[in-house]
Amino acid sequence: MAEIEAIAKLVNQLSKLPGVGRKTAQRLAYHIIALPEEQVRELAVAIFNGKKQIHFCPVCGNYTDTDPCAICSDPERRHDIVCVVRDPRDVNAMERMRDYNGLYHVLHGVISPMDGVGPDDIRIRELMSRLSSGEIQEVVLATNPDVEGEATAAYISRLIKPMGVKVTRIAHGVPVGGELEYTDEVTLMRAFQGRTEL
Amino acid sequence: MAEIEAIAKLVNQLSKLPGVGRKTAQRLAYHIIALPEEQVRELAVAIFNGKKQIHFCPVCGNYTDTDPCAICSDPERRHDIVCVVRDPRDVNAMERMRDYNGLYHVLHGVISPMDGVGPDDIRIRELMSRLSSGEIQEVVLATNPDVEGEATAAYISRLIKPMGVKVTRIAHGVPVGGELEYTDEVTLMRAFQGRTEL
Repeated sequence: MAEIEAIAKLVNQLSKLPGVGRKTAQRLAYHIIALPEEQVRELAVAIFNGKKQIHFCPVCGNYTDTDPCAICSDPERRHDIVCVVRDPRDVNAMERMRDYNGLYHVLHGVISPMDGVGPDDIRIRELMSRLSSGEIQEVVLATNPDVEGEATAAYISRLIKPMGVKVTRIAHGVPVGGELEYTDEVTLMRAFQGRTEL
Repeated sequence: MAEIEAIAKLVNQLSKLPGVGRKTAQRLAYHIIALPEEQVRELAVAIFNGKKQIHFCPVCGNYTDTDPCAICSDPERRHDIVCVVRDPRDVNAMERMRDYNGLYHVLHGVISPMDGVGPDDIRIRELMSRLSSGEIQEVVLATNPDVEGEATAAYISRLIKPMGVKVTRIAHGVPVGGELEYTDEVTLMRAFQGRTEL
């Protein structure tokens, strides 16, 4: 079979994406090849820049293209409340809700002894140092409502409480065992509004 | 909502791909951002080159990165038989079969009066000029077995026959692994009519 190398490479690269099998990769490849060159350039540039221009905000740990990120440096937002999440995509989910106007802290993981992830492996130390400035009045723990998420929330809660900072946990409006990323906006809003002090 | 422009652009570009909705585009975008930069570069380059390096073979009309394409210029293949298909992806399907060793001719469409596509809008003229060299002994019509595909095959067949070139049509029948019980009547009729002596 006479394979065209450029097509084979494209199919190969696309099939590495999550949820994209061989057949889908082939369908996507033929679609891309049939597009006008300008559109393909835009796609390729968006992919490359999406990676190249994005890094972690030194303050909150979210993806950003500025230092600090647009959320951390926004004077319109409340700087006395911090929402703690596992992943950048959870920040995205919270922002879609359009009901939260404070800051974030991305842990980049949760405590999971089974996977060898301890408190020092995620951004808990950075959270504590943010709290030491005294500006933050409330910490909302918005890790996923699964075993590791609950354990991480409990751990952080025990650390923060002695500092006299209010600690809350998003309500179990989020389906137990579910993921923030796939939660609809209304459920997420309910969960946020129903947050309780720990 | 503080959107990061580079991520928004990436999600926007990905969601233009066929079968990729907003949610999938977001999942892919976050996956891409989390990849090592080298892998992202490879993906972007594969997409861009996949488009840039590929054009239509001036002889058969298939996608190629050389002139003429690897199939047309392969001395190991039979140059006296041409398989006529609608799309480059049909060439791909035929090649996967690994049983055909001749040349191709890609029409880039089928005759479809409903869509305003006439014989002059697809590469029929180019096929006729290939046949005029006298080298081709058989033309296999492998357009899809739907209304437009059949009409196109019939049209081309009428054009070619007077030239004394053998014209064949791929067989219609029950798909291998399929069941008679669930085969539609028309297919079954074709399968019966096309029965061969064992």
